[in-house]
Amino acid sequence: MFEILLSDLSGQPLYLQLYTQMRNHIRSGVIRNGTRLPSIRSLHQQLNISKTPIETAFQMLLSEGYIVSKSRSGIFAVNPHENWPAFRPSIDLRQQGDVQNPIPSQSIAAQDIRFDFKPAGVDNEMFPVRIWRKMINEAIENHSADISKYGDTQGEYTLRAVLADYLRKSRGVVCSPEQVIIGSGIAYSIGLIVHLLKGIGRIAHEEPGYVQVREVFALNGFHMLPIPVGEKGISLEALEASGAQAVYVTPSHQLPTGAVMPYSEREYLLEWARTADAYIIEDDYDGEFRYFGKPISSLQSLDHYGRVIYMGTFSKAFTPAIRINYTILPIQLVQRLEELQHILNAPSRVEQWAMTSLIEQGHWYRHVRKMRNTYQRKHQRLLELIESHFSNKAKITGHSAGLHIRMELKTHLPTEELLKMAAEYGVKVYDFRHSWINWVEPEYPEIYLGFAGISESAMEEGILLLKKAWARVWS
Amino acid sequence: MFEILLSDLSGQPLYLQLYTQMRNHIRSGVIRNGTRLPSIRSLHQQLNISKTPIETAFQMLLSEGYIVSKSRSGIFAVNPHENWPAFRPSIDLRQQGDVQNPIPSQSIAAQDIRFDFKPAGVDNEMFPVRIWRKMINEAIENHSADISKYGDTQGEYTLRAVLADYLRKSRGVVCSPEQVIIGSGIAYSIGLIVHLLKGIGRIAHEEPGYVQVREVFALNGFHMLPIPVGEKGISLEALEASGAQAVYVTPSHQLPTGAVMPYSEREYLLEWARTADAYIIEDDYDGEFRYFGKPISSLQSLDHYGRVIYMGTFSKAFTPAIRINYTILPIQLVQRLEELQHILNAPSRVEQWAMTSLIEQGHWYRHVRKMRNTYQRKHQRLLELIESHFSNKAKITGHSAGLHIRMELKTHLPTEELLKMAAEYGVKVYDFRHSWINWVEPEYPEIYLGFAGISESAMEEGILLLKKAWARVWS
Repeated sequence: MFEILLSDLSGQPLYLQLYTQMRNHIRSGVIRNGTRLPSIRSLHQQLNISKTPIETAFQMLLSEGYIVSKSRSGIFAVNPHENWPAFRPSIDLRQQGDVQNPIPSQSIAAQDIRFDFKPAGVDNEMFPVRIWRKMINEAIENHSADISKYGDTQGEYTLRAVLADYLRKSRGVVCSPEQVIIGSGIAYSIGLIVHLLKGIGRIAHEEPGYVQVREVFALNGFHMLPIPVGEKGISLEALEASGAQAVYVTPSHQLPTGAVMPYSEREYLLEWARTADAYIIEDDYDGEFRYFGKPISSLQSLDHYGRVIYMGTFSKAFTPAIRINYTILPIQLVQRLEELQHILNAPSRVEQWAMTSLIEQGHWYRHVRKMRNTYQRKHQRLLELIESHFSNKAKITGHSAGLHIRMELKTHLPTEELLKMAAEYGVKVYDFRHSWINWVEPEYPEIYLGFAGISESAMEEGILLLKKAWARVWS
Repeated sequence: MFEILLSDLSGQPLYLQLYTQMRNHIRSGVIRNGTRLPSIRSLHQQLNISKTPIETAFQMLLSEGYIVSKSRSGIFAVNPHENWPAFRPSIDLRQQGDVQNPIPSQSIAAQDIRFDFKPAGVDNEMFPVRIWRKMINEAIENHSADISKYGDTQGEYTLRAVLADYLRKSRGVVCSPEQVIIGSGIAYSIGLIVHLLKGIGRIAHEEPGYVQVREVFALNGFHMLPIPVGEKGISLEALEASGAQAVYVTPSHQLPTGAVMPYSEREYLLEWARTADAYIIEDDYDGEFRYFGKPISSLQSLDHYGRVIYMGTFSKAFTPAIRINYTILPIQLVQRLEELQHILNAPSRVEQWAMTSLIEQGHWYRHVRKMRNTYQRKHQRLLELIESHFSNKAKITGHSAGLHIRMELKTHLPTEELLKMAAEYGVKVYDFRHSWINWVEPEYPEIYLGFAGISESAMEEGILLLKKAWARVWS
């Protein structure tokens, strides 16, 4: 369970060694809060020392509150830190698991939730365990001469080359490997962009938009300008009027509304950037997934003036557990990278090597195709379920792409109330209220449902329960 | 070699499809600069289309400079980007490989260097390939339910717990898992500290000291105060007089001088931090390796007032290819983490799980012991070689710990000249001049040699060549 090492050479008396080690084990969590400790007699036998030092150590721990003695049940560890408010953020983060989802407004305990329509979910069955293990094993095997060396802080060159090729084929992105930066997630990419855009004070941001990006910019002293989002994405009139020097957008599937920016607005946005000498940060976070209509070229592919910083991730189409994403810089910003060499920091070389082989050997293309089919099926199923159970009570929008949909409900109940009613039936749906800088209750409540991380059968049960939960809304 | 996909469904004429794909292949580097392209005749056979569209596409590429035709030898790809100065920084970074080493002041081509005494090197033979593959495979296997989920952005809780335990045992560090932040390298850790220390403007830094840390702080607008380093580490008098509100130190093995801060100075430094209400950033980057004398407790272990931010890494004792390091915060700074949740970004969950098992199953302890023995042997060998070949001409310092030593040469030749003479014999040694904010040529040149990344036989040859290279210094 835990280790106690007593030594005559340490110069410390046994009771002190014992006390210090047990205290540290309890403080560090090796002995968990509430754990029943071995009795004095069993420690006496186990450690082969007399009972006196053990009793003394226990007395000290008892008086300092690290253990409690409960009559007839034994001695238990108490971690005084566990109740410290200082530690709550970390624990909350852990339970929440992911900063892309809004913090649930209700304090419904996680264990009561049986069906979670988490918008940031990813299908759990689809990860190609066998192939990925093979890629990793080969990467370790084939790079034995490099495994003790620091890599390119911008990312392994070969991965940048195959990625440039993939993005050209799949998203029309035109770039050379020198423009590609391999990173470990959106926080890293925005952290770099913060330095690349030094001198720019005002950045426009979709309202509602991606919280994490907004917060990272704000933490770094940028003034964020919220620009309303409509059916065609960010409002170009409001953007023009804002005087922003850069804008962050998610044109392929706006986060969270799901709006897709049409081709003509894209051209207009690029023209704005050219004349205003501004940068567009295009986040193509789920660009692989589109279900209706013709795919629209990425902004980067339409950009002739080097105004677009393009970002994408392996978190959605592959897994968020391996922290790899990428940023494509326009050429004039590549020149600034030299000044930033000390903050460049690529992720694990081993996983970069494995990812390179995955793409080079064609597994990646097959995997994305499979994911797209699976998500298309799940997406279709969710639409059918909502249609059949809510028919004229719900209007679905933002559903031509991505991994979540938006459902507008025909009621004037507040969104929060609907979330609460759902949670009482063990179903978690979302309102994304944290995506707004200035949240206002919409005329009709807007509920967000992700379908990637939930199985089709669970989806079915979940929607049925949602129907029950909300039955009295329309009764 | 490269792929051309022609489709009738694309609606584009064949020559345009061919032109676009080839141009993109050349621009993205899939077809490398200078590659000989297949002839029109062979493409005609391979693609099974008539020669006219191929000829048209080639004409277009030719006129735009993407290919050149050389009589009697064929058609060659030309990447117009390859010669752009914009791309040089990235390429330089790649060749340099690692920002911890100073940029060599001479332009000796890398291929001419046969013996590299790189201070940031790590032994290449020691990486436990078999065990690490086992840990990774088990991690993927055992966490199949979690592999599609976002992890704790502060780092996996179990890794933080076993790490807290390891650091307590090995370095006397007292902390709970809530104080541990798992990161992907020094740039990440300093990037976080930048935000944790917001409001502090002046940070003291060892002179000479670790370039990357200094640069990341400076990039973020901090005013860096260079404080001289002596035989006992950073000068405490100069620190006190500087008015700094925080200090970055490497007390276990000062980077680069190798000075070890004695116990009494540590107590004094902690007392300074307490009275000045300042923070100490303790970087224990190679704390595992100590060869002479009694290990001195880390500053963190002596700190009773929560003034020490402790940092360590797996890059030296394990591998720099897997980007995992850690930062231990004092409790009052843990409270600020909530504000920073959007910039927290832990590395690969899979590698964190593997690292957890590596430590839990005892492999880590055995590995560190083996590394310590190997490095002790190499270190001993280097000292012997220098002693026998340079005897009274060199004085070695900074050699009681770590992975590099400092050699002071009895000559008044400038350091740069000595480095150049060595390079002419294929030996690379270092002067760390970039570690100084204000570099001054020392009375006697100081040369730095790393021993971790070079084999004993290469070390022997290298020192012999160095003797030859420098023979005329004392003739």
